[in-house]
Amino acid sequence: MKIYFVTSNRHKVEEAKKILGTEIEQVKLDIKEIQSLDVKEVVKDKAKEAYAKLKKPVIVEDTGLYIKGWNGFPGALISWVVKSMGIKKLCKTIGRKRSAMAKACVAYYDGKNLKIFCGQIKGRISKKPRGKKRFDWDRIFIPEGDTRTFAEMSLEEKNRISHRVKAFRKFKRFLVR
Amino acid sequence: MKIYFVTSNRHKVEEAKKILGTEIEQVKLDIKEIQSLDVKEVVKDKAKEAYAKLKKPVIVEDTGLYIKGWNGFPGALISWVVKSMGIKKLCKTIGRKRSAMAKACVAYYDGKNLKIFCGQIKGRISKKPRGKKRFDWDRIFIPEGDTRTFAEMSLEEKNRISHRVKAFRKFKRFLVR
Repeated sequence: MKIYFVTSNRHKVEEAKKILGTEIEQVKLDIKEIQSLDVKEVVKDKAKEAYAKLKKPVIVEDTGLYIKGWNGFPGALISWVVKSMGIKKLCKTIGRKRSAMAKACVAYYDGKNLKIFCGQIKGRISKKPRGKKRFDWDRIFIPEGDTRTFAEMSLEEKNRISHRVKAFRKFKRFLVR
Repeated sequence: MKIYFVTSNRHKVEEAKKILGTEIEQVKLDIKEIQSLDVKEVVKDKAKEAYAKLKKPVIVEDTGLYIKGWNGFPGALISWVVKSMGIKKLCKTIGRKRSAMAKACVAYYDGKNLKIFCGQIKGRISKKPRGKKRFDWDRIFIPEGDTRTFAEMSLEEKNRISHRVKAFRKFKRFLVR
């Protein structure tokens, strides 16, 4: 079965192909995301919108960063913080409580079944950005049990533990049932 | 002409009635707002969605708080900051650059004409919340030229200068053309 991944990010498509071992085609569609801190809600709505436009089995993916000292803010809205405030200022702005949770959700919709698969990983926010520029906030998230940010790890190393890979693995288990 | 104001907030409806002097009916509709810092974009999309459900001339309104030291964040997403982080922590989190801009936009759509009217007011964020609990962030916004927060003013006083009243006055000028 061919699945259409609605995203503008081809790296995510490559990652999904490797994990899922099924035929994935990238589709770029301009779909507006709804306002919510909850990644699950955002992908649920997005998958429905994507299917309405495409009429083919689709997946969408979104990630969120939940900062404990901010009661979970900004969650799914993290990309707006990155775009406006920037990660450097974000690191400075967060107080002493630097615990955070990274979460990714993949939503699959084929017009009948709507399924959502989420993966998450605990960690903390670094004092300042460190490592290679890759995904939005890879340079400031230190996964639990490590001292390095995601961006200081090799991509292989990151992908062994990342929230997104966890979400895609769950989706794979659904596909091969 | 009767206009339908899609909002869950009846205070906003009363305010609009006073300014517009036209027949306004409150309608509660569950419309998801799109993710954007830009209030104008949010109301534009919302007015279209509201009209699609109601098929009658509608107005929607949204406000945003643009914090200068955060490069305009959170804008239209301020309600999520208020709900999660809270205004007390927001006051603490903002650094020395406390300038801000409050903006309100009213979007009118009758199926043919889509018109957007915005009002804005400069100011700064207080060191801590002050005044009576009213709208979300009234207790932390000090309009330029004053030392009091919006919440420390009487409603009449606030409504002489507020961003929302400015937006509604512009809409009135359009109505009475």
